[in-house]
Amino acid sequence: MVHYALIVAGGKGLRMGADLPKQFLPIGGKPVLMRTLEAFRAYDSSLKLILVLPSEQQGFWTQLCEEHHFHIEHELADGGDTRFHSVQNGLALVTTPGLVGVHDGVRPFVSSSVIRRCYELAAIHHAVIPVVDVVETVREVTTAGSRTVDRNAYKLVQTPQVFDAELLKQAYSQPYTSLFTDDASVVEAWGTSVYLTEGNRENIKITTPFDLKIGEALLECSI
Amino acid sequence: MVHYALIVAGGKGLRMGADLPKQFLPIGGKPVLMRTLEAFRAYDSSLKLILVLPSEQQGFWTQLCEEHHFHIEHELADGGDTRFHSVQNGLALVTTPGLVGVHDGVRPFVSSSVIRRCYELAAIHHAVIPVVDVVETVREVTTAGSRTVDRNAYKLVQTPQVFDAELLKQAYSQPYTSLFTDDASVVEAWGTSVYLTEGNRENIKITTPFDLKIGEALLECSI
Repeated sequence: MVHYALIVAGGKGLRMGADLPKQFLPIGGKPVLMRTLEAFRAYDSSLKLILVLPSEQQGFWTQLCEEHHFHIEHELADGGDTRFHSVQNGLALVTTPGLVGVHDGVRPFVSSSVIRRCYELAAIHHAVIPVVDVVETVREVTTAGSRTVDRNAYKLVQTPQVFDAELLKQAYSQPYTSLFTDDASVVEAWGTSVYLTEGNRENIKITTPFDLKIGEALLECSI
Repeated sequence: MVHYALIVAGGKGLRMGADLPKQFLPIGGKPVLMRTLEAFRAYDSSLKLILVLPSEQQGFWTQLCEEHHFHIEHELADGGDTRFHSVQNGLALVTTPGLVGVHDGVRPFVSSSVIRRCYELAAIHHAVIPVVDVVETVREVTTAGSRTVDRNAYKLVQTPQVFDAELLKQAYSQPYTSLFTDDASVVEAWGTSVYLTEGNRENIKITTPFDLKIGEALLECSI
């Protein structure tokens, strides 16, 4: 049984106000994306890594890998117009039964224990996602205004989202809709419920300069 | 017309795993709470500052102020058993008409422009709170399991929450219930709707060692 990690890095970098797409921005001198791949390789040296990257960035990535002497083996798939299409492209390289974890390329701070738990639970439950509590007061915005809701009823969703490979491929054969905000929503639309497990709070998505600064802090303090 | 800022620092520090209650922990060498008071003083030198602090911490606070040559004028009120009761105690020192902003003592990174906007809008709308978007996918946990919900329908609530003083005092004359998670929920239970305005994302609540590290990063990078 071969297990896969599909690392999706579709960022065009437009939200960063920087020239580099966000997945290439350095944290502690090393591109975010390399740290993400390292996290999965550290979890399991036999995991097959598939990196989904816009085709126009792949040359730059190869060059970056050489510069940084980055030798973690991985296959490349072309990014699509949406995250959904990127995942579809990556899944085309999943050719054997097993588990597939789909992870955001810009989440380098996922912990080994969260990765492990998601894969181990997916072997039992077929569809597993890591979530964390909401620490702020939550309001729901309604047509009539807004109202406080019980924050304990809500969870924030992270990645890796890990699935049985066959299930995930079937789910991704559905026509795309904009309601697909993550892999769990695709799998649910296919009719399979997902199992929630605890994520790690440091597993933030690096999408703004603010996040990049938090990332630097996390690295220095090595929580 | 006198305007007030009621800074609530009820933390017993149990969640930090540190000896010091969280409001006293240093960020960049200076206690969080001093930075919070400075933010409000910087916004308006005529604002009356009321600090709500557990009575057993007040001696330590006075000593800290001396050590740090901290001379920003403020009155002290005793903390209560819950945040609701702490705010009630602080409101007892609000003796004239005006606006009252209630702010978490452990949110030192509120921006001047957010403070200003909340007070200015409260002069028009009577009850104003700063909110930010949810950047993660949100799931609602239900008795049947969980489901993805539209994250655009939810906002995360920050402080300062600014109100007409008389309105806030009336709202806080209600009997306490555990549904009161913030000042807005108290005012809403009184029958007044609140107006939402944009907060600043750096305005985090320092409640865990993780937050403290983010705080250090924010300070160094002075976003």
